[in-house]
Amino acid sequence: MKSFFNPHSVAIFASMKEGKTGYEIVKNMVEGGFKGEIYPINRNAGEIFGQKIYSEFGNLDISLAIIAIPEQFIPSLLKELGEKGVKSVVIISAGFSEVGNIKEEEELKNVAKKYKMRIVGPNCAGIMNTNCNLFASIEVRALLGQTAFITQSGALGGVVLMMAEELGFGFSKFASYGNRCDVDEIDLIKYLENDSQTRVIAIYIEGLIKGREFLIQTKRIVSKKPIIVIKAGKSKAGMRATSSHTGSLAGEDKIYDAAFKQAGILRVDNVSEMFDLSRGLIDYPNIKGNRIAVVTNSGGPAVMTTDKLEELGLVVPEPSERLKNKLKKILSPNVSLGNPFDLLAYGDAENFASTCEAIAPEYDAIIAIFVPTSFMDSTKIARALGEVKKKINKPIFGSFMAGILVKEGIEELKKYGIPNYEIGERCAQVIQKIYLQSYKNY
Amino acid sequence: MKSFFNPHSVAIFASMKEGKTGYEIVKNMVEGGFKGEIYPINRNAGEIFGQKIYSEFGNLDISLAIIAIPEQFIPSLLKELGEKGVKSVVIISAGFSEVGNIKEEEELKNVAKKYKMRIVGPNCAGIMNTNCNLFASIEVRALLGQTAFITQSGALGGVVLMMAEELGFGFSKFASYGNRCDVDEIDLIKYLENDSQTRVIAIYIEGLIKGREFLIQTKRIVSKKPIIVIKAGKSKAGMRATSSHTGSLAGEDKIYDAAFKQAGILRVDNVSEMFDLSRGLIDYPNIKGNRIAVVTNSGGPAVMTTDKLEELGLVVPEPSERLKNKLKKILSPNVSLGNPFDLLAYGDAENFASTCEAIAPEYDAIIAIFVPTSFMDSTKIARALGEVKKKINKPIFGSFMAGILVKEGIEELKKYGIPNYEIGERCAQVIQKIYLQSYKNY
Repeated sequence: MKSFFNPHSVAIFASMKEGKTGYEIVKNMVEGGFKGEIYPINRNAGEIFGQKIYSEFGNLDISLAIIAIPEQFIPSLLKELGEKGVKSVVIISAGFSEVGNIKEEEELKNVAKKYKMRIVGPNCAGIMNTNCNLFASIEVRALLGQTAFITQSGALGGVVLMMAEELGFGFSKFASYGNRCDVDEIDLIKYLENDSQTRVIAIYIEGLIKGREFLIQTKRIVSKKPIIVIKAGKSKAGMRATSSHTGSLAGEDKIYDAAFKQAGILRVDNVSEMFDLSRGLIDYPNIKGNRIAVVTNSGGPAVMTTDKLEELGLVVPEPSERLKNKLKKILSPNVSLGNPFDLLAYGDAENFASTCEAIAPEYDAIIAIFVPTSFMDSTKIARALGEVKKKINKPIFGSFMAGILVKEGIEELKKYGIPNYEIGERCAQVIQKIYLQSYKNY
Repeated sequence: MKSFFNPHSVAIFASMKEGKTGYEIVKNMVEGGFKGEIYPINRNAGEIFGQKIYSEFGNLDISLAIIAIPEQFIPSLLKELGEKGVKSVVIISAGFSEVGNIKEEEELKNVAKKYKMRIVGPNCAGIMNTNCNLFASIEVRALLGQTAFITQSGALGGVVLMMAEELGFGFSKFASYGNRCDVDEIDLIKYLENDSQTRVIAIYIEGLIKGREFLIQTKRIVSKKPIIVIKAGKSKAGMRATSSHTGSLAGEDKIYDAAFKQAGILRVDNVSEMFDLSRGLIDYPNIKGNRIAVVTNSGGPAVMTTDKLEELGLVVPEPSERLKNKLKKILSPNVSLGNPFDLLAYGDAENFASTCEAIAPEYDAIIAIFVPTSFMDSTKIARALGEVKKKINKPIFGSFMAGILVKEGIEELKKYGIPNYEIGERCAQVIQKIYLQSYKNY
């Protein structure tokens, strides 16, 4: 798989007219700053984004070929590429098994086999590696990050990239594998297992073909890095839709669910949860117990977070008498010494930090909820929490809530590896999922 | 309650130094463009934001008084105001029952009773009426909208206003009633019942004192306009926290839950759900059945939405043979004629519109999921859906997904009264809640 993600040269076979697929890919590759050679290939030679368009690829040394020409011309192009020794091909074009053209897809497979060529696709959205600025896709360029995202659905891949851009969420690798006539999710996760730039693997699947093998591999990999799965096609109507639109058999969802659990895969329901959990796992792959503390400058949001934590089976226990006495000495007299620890409106950076430090030995994770006020500097509070995090060796999650007043504070949290969630309830969901998974490993 | 929300003059008793409460309130009132008189009152006379600061209020005609002076000076000020005939007072200052000063709060009540004065607060975040630009609060000014939001927790009120600002979500009225020494949620909802600018009432409560009365009133009001409740203090730890921070008794959550259901109140778990549901209810107060259609240009997101719909007990049934035949004539041959109706990547404005129009008679609501592509104009699709909505008389919900490419499309949907949700799963949640409530009314 190496030449898919770290090619020294990329040839793009597609229309180079403005707005067409080839044009968009070359644009992404050039503007993204790809470090190797870019070869736009089209019989209408010329120039595009400062790159020469080649009318034939005869002498070019092609490490990765991206194909987006009409489906009927693909088999013969594949053969030519095979003859020239090209081993890695991404087929973006649709028009194969997803619309009933099973035979045509078989033909692709046969060519690939004959030439020991590997194919990603067809009917996919391409691949990206943010570490070498490879953006072989028409989709929004991914930001640099530590989550690899692989997806069966190309359209969903596009949506995820757009949502991520708005959130400032980055990726190490991106791959849309479409109809998976050859390269499938198993090949991809085995590659990502040893990719040092990837700390979390996230997958969107609609159905598995080699289910047993997938579970064997994931079970091994999750001991090294967490795997998050969004599996669509849970309901009957959903399954019906899945089988119609990618031709894959969705299968009974309960079976998937049980198998995922057994393999140690973290299942989420939707894309938002995937982002939330991913951000948590990058900073905290493990949470060793279920005793959670909530520290806040505002009662209401803390109560709702506490409700959610307990609803999810975590506990929000009161501090010991010894700890209460300790807190009495550091906090002002009106402060509630229960959990949630409500520092009230005058809870400042010093209060947040000293409370977290004092309570850390009795809890397994801390949620710091900060409701901004015009007189309190969120950056200071973020910095204080960051410094405390270094000392206590316990996970701290942020919930700096909404608005322009906390924007800088959230950026500051990021620098210290503290993930922030707009509402505390989402922190709770992330903590529960990480804890349940960690629990099995201890 | 009229003089609280439609005062002809507002006096503000507070420190007018830069950054202090009085300063912020006057700033909000002036910049917000309040249509009546503004009287900043402080013994350090002078000027602020072009307004004269009065050192005493002797001859002023005060319709509403906002008080944010230290708690110990409040009772005597209240008496003076009472003597002058001021009937409506908002006390922002804290330091009463929430920190154990029960007697001091009793005194406020007694003064109010004596002078037939009504008090909102103490320990609250103030009130707003966007229809007359009344922003008697230090919080972010609400945008104009049709949802009234009332909250026991002032801090939570601030958070809601900030989140709303980021979402572009507006309010008709806002009131934070804090310790509710006098005016409570019942007074407020009875006022809002007849407020023509309010179409949805949303409430954040931690505990009720007059539970029976609240339920009698809400049961009556929901036949006119929907009521959404966020009730914190569900879990044991949450209840413990609630009783410590506002001094109200949270009570067993199950009892609340059952009572809310019986009264026809829509309960949500958090602030995000409140925004989602509110936006849905403004356009569609009723959904008459549980048969939902999903129309999309992208398989993956549609499958996940379908899963969610069925998980929530709604159905996503296949169209009749008759309808299938009808669709065959209007759509291109590759299009799947099942539900979800997947128009594939080339689904354009015309396809979306003709599909929605054709299927409307067989379904109770339609979710239109649009995944943007660079070659498809989201505004056109929005407009086409908007025009169809006028014809079919069935609710259409949008899920135009993420990114700069759909920003204008979402604005266009808004003009036609089609609420949009970033992911289809959130549409599903809103539809379920509205349907379950409507169901009882038929």
